[in-house]
Amino acid sequence: MSKIQIAKAKRLRSTPYSSRIEKQGLTAYTTYNHMLLPAGFEDTLEDSYYHLKEHVQVWDVAAERQVEISGEDSTELVQLITCRDLSKSKDGRCYYCPIIDDQAGLINDPVVLRINKNKWWLSIADSDVILFAKGLAIGKNFDVQIIEPNVDIMAVQGPKSFPLMEKIFGKTITDLKFFGFDYFDFKGTKYLIARSGWSKQGGYEIYVEHTESGLELYDHLFEIGNEFNVKPGCPNSIERIESALLSYGNDFDLNDNPLECGFDKYVNLDSDIDFLGKEKLKEIKAHGISKKLMGVKIDHNKIDVSKAIDITINSKRIGELRSGVYSPTFKQVICIAMIDKPFFEIDTKVEVSINNEIKTGVICNIPFV
Amino acid sequence: MSKIQIAKAKRLRSTPYSSRIEKQGLTAYTTYNHMLLPAGFEDTLEDSYYHLKEHVQVWDVAAERQVEISGEDSTELVQLITCRDLSKSKDGRCYYCPIIDDQAGLINDPVVLRINKNKWWLSIADSDVILFAKGLAIGKNFDVQIIEPNVDIMAVQGPKSFPLMEKIFGKTITDLKFFGFDYFDFKGTKYLIARSGWSKQGGYEIYVEHTESGLELYDHLFEIGNEFNVKPGCPNSIERIESALLSYGNDFDLNDNPLECGFDKYVNLDSDIDFLGKEKLKEIKAHGISKKLMGVKIDHNKIDVSKAIDITINSKRIGELRSGVYSPTFKQVICIAMIDKPFFEIDTKVEVSINNEIKTGVICNIPFV
Repeated sequence: MSKIQIAKAKRLRSTPYSSRIEKQGLTAYTTYNHMLLPAGFEDTLEDSYYHLKEHVQVWDVAAERQVEISGEDSTELVQLITCRDLSKSKDGRCYYCPIIDDQAGLINDPVVLRINKNKWWLSIADSDVILFAKGLAIGKNFDVQIIEPNVDIMAVQGPKSFPLMEKIFGKTITDLKFFGFDYFDFKGTKYLIARSGWSKQGGYEIYVEHTESGLELYDHLFEIGNEFNVKPGCPNSIERIESALLSYGNDFDLNDNPLECGFDKYVNLDSDIDFLGKEKLKEIKAHGISKKLMGVKIDHNKIDVSKAIDITINSKRIGELRSGVYSPTFKQVICIAMIDKPFFEIDTKVEVSINNEIKTGVICNIPFV
Repeated sequence: MSKIQIAKAKRLRSTPYSSRIEKQGLTAYTTYNHMLLPAGFEDTLEDSYYHLKEHVQVWDVAAERQVEISGEDSTELVQLITCRDLSKSKDGRCYYCPIIDDQAGLINDPVVLRINKNKWWLSIADSDVILFAKGLAIGKNFDVQIIEPNVDIMAVQGPKSFPLMEKIFGKTITDLKFFGFDYFDFKGTKYLIARSGWSKQGGYEIYVEHTESGLELYDHLFEIGNEFNVKPGCPNSIERIESALLSYGNDFDLNDNPLECGFDKYVNLDSDIDFLGKEKLKEIKAHGISKKLMGVKIDHNKIDVSKAIDITINSKRIGELRSGVYSPTFKQVICIAMIDKPFFEIDTKVEVSINNEIKTGVICNIPFV
């Protein structure tokens, strides 16, 4: 963690929860979609990791902004920007969708919520998808409205999220299937709640559309959550890298395509749907990918990946680390890395320079096992 | 200034100069175009302001990313996204251009460099213009290439930037007119250098395309700059607000149009050029704007604008502060504010709540006088 402060400004938008989390021991912010995203509390990263895996945390993830696409041509536009076949999608379901351009370069990897067939929410990672959608809609003369609605997500994550949420919303909320969503009531206000979130420890994301009642709900979660050992938290880099939850901008970006990132099951080349980059992806698939997102385990106890770090074999570059963290579970540094062809074989021995010391590691599959 | 740290990650890209400025006393970062932008050094904001107005500073503004649009249809695309008439533009000149969508909402306000008629650089503020340009180009089937080239700007700002730059690049660099650019040599490497920058104290922006030689140039500026009292620095909020250099995301965004922001001279509705939002702007002009970017001076000595702050008259909201700072020159807090119609008259008395205390101020024109 750097000791350098973040300079606040209106341009890096606060969330409705910012003033609360700052009183709850926040120590670090990152920014995401031009908004503040908590990145650390007084607990150490490891303590927070163990807590998340055992108890329940409430996260201010308002920075997961929504792009709302509605209107007559909304389904056509949403399908055009993703390589995932949405022709059989259903209302009330979430879909993880790589968004790509005409060259198959990755623009974002949102969770797409089908509210109904003429209204979609794209719950986005950190890039201005709204501008891509607007540009394309204008160029194609689509009949759509594209806005960023006033939605500020709070996530409730961890195994005890289920009893905590049941206590507030009743038994029916535990019937939600993974990536399903529905509407639930708290003190007369309706909330869209999805069974989702940026951890693999289980939980929910609450799409707050009414700021004041949302704050009441936020406080209520802490008021009644003592018995579940509830704490404020944020996406945890140990947990997310162990779980191989990929991060746009860290692990992949516009210079990578979905096949290089292991998104094969979301690349529906055989269907007859029309989407940008389809021909390009067919070409890439026919020729084979030239680089691939994989894991690397390194015999060391510390790493800080604030930019890509070269991976070498006998000093020859064969790829780069893009995210990494010390995992107390694997008792190693675990990394997500883009590996060049032909070094895709697992257990290949590699070298990485960490703080000017050469460390050794091996290539592995992700998720880590 | 918050005491909260910034959490680094590859997603918030470092610049080639980051490691240098961190050794030179950097205390705060902001983020801008998914990149780190220095926001404070050990000197106080006021000391740095006086230094900038008297001496010379070198700024790491690599976060001003370039969107390069080239190819057969590049001129048509660049013209389509800005309301400024570029039909008489010339190679080697910079143009400040509001970029707007079909509803005249502001997407960005880059300085546009015409490299030649088939190659343009948009030196952008903080939003993903590349995605808007790509979406539009795909939708319109334009024959263009759109990339983010490897360009990392360092700015040399302040009155002594002229003798300092002359010492390195020779007398000809002082012949550059404001918003002109040309190519200059340092140790065998060619640099595009513009007479521009995000202060009104004069200076240059050096568009570094070769990282290693750029670092040599960065170091050289400090090696030979002692006689001009050179220091590292960054855009200074006192200087920029006094000069009314507007900031995208702070002072205006997608919900504002160029006429509301006082960009009238860059809105060329009478020319026969075709651009997005032209009809909408004609309509707005015919009906008159409903809000307007103006100044507010407040009788106080401190303000922190990390989100919009309501401006009231007798407790009724009449607008909002978007940026603000204590100015040692005006001995008041000076703010940039969006004021609702019909409260555009200067010297109108208003109230603002700062840290839960009601302060009084007056509406004024910008730039401040």
